[in-house]
Amino acid sequence: MDVLYNYRIALDVMGGDHAPGIILEGALDALAARADLFLYLVGDEVRILAALKQLHAAEPLMKRAQIVHAASVVAMEDKATVTLKEKKDSSICVAVKLVLDGLAGGFVSMGHTGASMVASMKIMGTLPGVDRPCLASVMPNMTSSPTVLLDVGANLECKPEHIAQFAVMGSVYAEEVLGVKKPRVGVLSVGEEDSKGSAIIKEATNSLRCLDLNFIGNAEGCDIWNGKFDVIACDGFVGNAILKSSETLAESLLHGLKSAFMESWHSRLGALLSVHAFRRLKKKLDYSEYGGAPLLGVKGIAIIGHGRSNAYAVKNAICAAVTASEHGINQRIQQSLASILLKRR
Amino acid sequence: MDVLYNYRIALDVMGGDHAPGIILEGALDALAARADLFLYLVGDEVRILAALKQLHAAEPLMKRAQIVHAASVVAMEDKATVTLKEKKDSSICVAVKLVLDGLAGGFVSMGHTGASMVASMKIMGTLPGVDRPCLASVMPNMTSSPTVLLDVGANLECKPEHIAQFAVMGSVYAEEVLGVKKPRVGVLSVGEEDSKGSAIIKEATNSLRCLDLNFIGNAEGCDIWNGKFDVIACDGFVGNAILKSSETLAESLLHGLKSAFMESWHSRLGALLSVHAFRRLKKKLDYSEYGGAPLLGVKGIAIIGHGRSNAYAVKNAICAAVTASEHGINQRIQQSLASILLKRR
Repeated sequence: MDVLYNYRIALDVMGGDHAPGIILEGALDALAARADLFLYLVGDEVRILAALKQLHAAEPLMKRAQIVHAASVVAMEDKATVTLKEKKDSSICVAVKLVLDGLAGGFVSMGHTGASMVASMKIMGTLPGVDRPCLASVMPNMTSSPTVLLDVGANLECKPEHIAQFAVMGSVYAEEVLGVKKPRVGVLSVGEEDSKGSAIIKEATNSLRCLDLNFIGNAEGCDIWNGKFDVIACDGFVGNAILKSSETLAESLLHGLKSAFMESWHSRLGALLSVHAFRRLKKKLDYSEYGGAPLLGVKGIAIIGHGRSNAYAVKNAICAAVTASEHGINQRIQQSLASILLKRR
Repeated sequence: MDVLYNYRIALDVMGGDHAPGIILEGALDALAARADLFLYLVGDEVRILAALKQLHAAEPLMKRAQIVHAASVVAMEDKATVTLKEKKDSSICVAVKLVLDGLAGGFVSMGHTGASMVASMKIMGTLPGVDRPCLASVMPNMTSSPTVLLDVGANLECKPEHIAQFAVMGSVYAEEVLGVKKPRVGVLSVGEEDSKGSAIIKEATNSLRCLDLNFIGNAEGCDIWNGKFDVIACDGFVGNAILKSSETLAESLLHGLKSAFMESWHSRLGALLSVHAFRRLKKKLDYSEYGGAPLLGVKGIAIIGHGRSNAYAVKNAICAAVTASEHGINQRIQQSLASILLKRR
């Protein structure tokens, strides 16, 4: 008997530093977490079967999964733009194609970020009303709610209307997937006053003030971490620089702390006594809670995770794709952007 | 008998969250550290005298200081651009004027960043060959040498030649003031390959490759913290966003750690045992080691510090101004930029 599952996701099993083992582990966890999920496991069939055997994949879960063979893998050194032409049989391209063909509602990869973005944009296409899809990153912080920063790398040079669209898409994502009511939206600038910032930012701010959005003004770099904003829109150049800078700063701080603790016997003892405190802090900062970065504005769901993702991050990326699908974020994005166009007339 | 001192610095005593007390404390420390230093203490004479009395300022030190009265102070809420017109008698304007008049070689302020920048640029003027002065920030990291990030807010929109000039000025500062031999210079982009980045970045990269500079290629956000680059040039919009984001991220991390430690008795005990480890880490990350941000490309030395600066930061900012003066960084900047112009012909 053929059962219809509510959410079908195409998972690139070959992408990521620990593929395919960790990816499949996350996939099984996601299947266990959501009984309404069906997964296409896309990649090298022989390697997938071997890894599943090693993981002792439970038969009831595997009834909701199907292996789809892909002959090649996009390597980290491959150029994103040539992937589409030369690696049509890659796990990324095959998985995205499943979305185009309507077999899957979403695509998830921990592989090559650029190739995943380009494949999603070119194969799925862009939603009506969206000029440029953008990559959003959920930035964890010490407060109870994270901040969605977007774009973090899909568009290096942006016009004011692109940044305004990013803000709208980010607001929909924060509301529907992160469950934030009336997300507080801002545009990244160099000061909180409207008079501060580049010409592009000022124009984006002006147009956002007219929309049906909880736009609360200009955000500054500090506001990514203090919980004042749920969504901060910027161009992909600055977003990418901040994302990469923050990841390394946080890591090097925690690493530096570890080294500092190792320098004397009493601080080593102190560290032992404080191990739970450390873990709590690390959990708060854990990007894997949010699984991956959604590429917003494409016809379908696309979640692109960190190459270093563990099984927990993979599971959460898949669950984020399901939630996005469940809440119909693309319909909501289209509606919101259509209302902008109406207002412009 | 009139003694000639080698280095004369005009200090804005009224700027900063803890002015004038903390500023004067730092001033006295700087005078004690450098016997060749003479300071103009610029601000409200009555308040300065009272604060000096409270600090029990030693008479021999005060022989190398002179109070210069300034009737007003630039408030944090004042607009930078109107300061010059409406607050000509402010401590910032009076101090900068001492540089213009040749009485001082450098200006140091922990006050209003925008006003200090604008006053320095407009009153001192720009060095020949410099299109746009820029604000540099010395970013401390876990490695043994910090990274100079510039511009961090003086120029929001930049042409490729501006970014190339920032790189040259940053290289001179790293070499002369931080003592780095052959500083490794990069331009901030979204990937390390020359093919990555915006059109502006690509053009800046191309022109830097032709210069007599240790240009090692594109830097990414992560490279601000990993010690791979001594100097990273970018436009003031992205630099400002990264600077503010990093400050808050590091602070909230350390704060979060403290809170996590307070949650149980054994982690509290652990924290007590590890207090030195914490201090070592904080010292490594301490911006006050470098005193303040130099505004490069103006006719004179200008160092602008954090409003929250403590006496140690004030002392280091004054000492950085002395070192910059001592090493003739402005002559070196002019020479380096002149050689660019020659190559272009």
